[in-house]
Amino acid sequence: MGLLIGWEARRLKIPKSHPRYKSLTTREKLVKAVERGLAVKEGLIAHGRGEAFDYLLGEKTTGFAEKAEKAAAAYLLRADAPVISVNGNAAALAPKQLVKLGKVVNAKLEANVFYGKRVERIEQITRELKRNGARKVLGSNPDARIPGLKGQRALCASNGIYASDLVLVPLEDGDRTQALAAMGKTVIAIDLNPLSRTSLAAKVSIVDELTRAVPNIAGFATGFKRNPKQIAETIREFDNDNNLSALLKFIRDRLAKL
Amino acid sequence: MGLLIGWEARRLKIPKSHPRYKSLTTREKLVKAVERGLAVKEGLIAHGRGEAFDYLLGEKTTGFAEKAEKAAAAYLLRADAPVISVNGNAAALAPKQLVKLGKVVNAKLEANVFYGKRVERIEQITRELKRNGARKVLGSNPDARIPGLKGQRALCASNGIYASDLVLVPLEDGDRTQALAAMGKTVIAIDLNPLSRTSLAAKVSIVDELTRAVPNIAGFATGFKRNPKQIAETIREFDNDNNLSALLKFIRDRLAKL
Repeated sequence: MGLLIGWEARRLKIPKSHPRYKSLTTREKLVKAVERGLAVKEGLIAHGRGEAFDYLLGEKTTGFAEKAEKAAAAYLLRADAPVISVNGNAAALAPKQLVKLGKVVNAKLEANVFYGKRVERIEQITRELKRNGARKVLGSNPDARIPGLKGQRALCASNGIYASDLVLVPLEDGDRTQALAAMGKTVIAIDLNPLSRTSLAAKVSIVDELTRAVPNIAGFATGFKRNPKQIAETIREFDNDNNLSALLKFIRDRLAKL
Repeated sequence: MGLLIGWEARRLKIPKSHPRYKSLTTREKLVKAVERGLAVKEGLIAHGRGEAFDYLLGEKTTGFAEKAEKAAAAYLLRADAPVISVNGNAAALAPKQLVKLGKVVNAKLEANVFYGKRVERIEQITRELKRNGARKVLGSNPDARIPGLKGQRALCASNGIYASDLVLVPLEDGDRTQALAAMGKTVIAIDLNPLSRTSLAAKVSIVDELTRAVPNIAGFATGFKRNPKQIAETIREFDNDNNLSALLKFIRDRLAKL
């Protein structure tokens, strides 16, 4: 972890063959996103936490993550009004993939921010998603509130998250995930920390890196569209608690071998 | 992890009684350090990685860390020319503790940077250490190079790190730790990732949070000064590889219980 990072990688023109190329360019992408106001400094710290957990996973999609991604695709297709919630880090790291997933599963996109100046940052996120093919992004005119949250974090769109029956939350904080679950919504989380309150509160906890997880969900959804009978079966068979426990065991076994 | 963080904590005036108070104020400190050019954005990501590992440790000093801290104190007192290497994150998080440790074990302080504009950042680190009681800080006139490193990262002081027989590196990258060890120096690392190249390359690997580790080392050093016979014994009895293995087992057991 951390052979050549950020500034140093830029300076040394890091080759694509470098074993840490993906991780280094991702860091770089996020640092640049902070410079243009799309992400915030606090988001960099959160990203670092994710990096550490990804390192423990071997920096690849585990079989457990894949299972959760398949279940997520099934839930998204079964939902009546699914919404993908997009914050600064998510917009910086996987804008194209999130927009594509929204189209595949027919989900709305809604921008939300945790830190900083809401209006400016929502605008940045919206612009980034539109630049990557989004037709419409909710969030800039919030006219409803998520019960139990304080301040701007409670704000949402009445025709978006508020009215949704399912919310996909990539890189979300625990309070917001719990509040959405308390509203009775099906919450699907993408979070590299299997022990976070977000992972523990979600109906489907995808413990995987965002840019790996989102295209996987879209891929499974495309498969389900050809074979819709599998949707109910996949939902019936998925057990989130068991899947999280098995993943923790996987990390423990990896730690024993390292 | 991440109930109320950074900006939000500031806004909500987080009380000292909050279970995540320490972690939240530390984040805040580092974000502010970036704003004034003492630390850099890449350092925030590194801090996040550390946070994740600290979370796995239970956010307290383990018995294994304490053993390493005691050994570090012994090695520091036995050294002829020990140097404490201070980067932006270290200066932002534990300036007072590092200055105090330098006095207790009679070690020089040398500022070094990994990213950004060297001259300006070395000046910021130097100023921060002096503000916290340091008389002299090396690093602003580097006249030697660490073999095997490229660019500004190789720079050091001929009467500091270059001539030292021991270097304490808090929050250091793997390349630099390995290069210092290859020079034949005793390297003591403080790094929350027990699997990092830094932890694996060091003679004494302290897997603990900086502001907890540094005062502990100083405390043990004070004890040794009253009882100098224990120094050689402590060094003889300390086995870094065994200690790291035991720590990894501790993390695995914790993961099994969580």
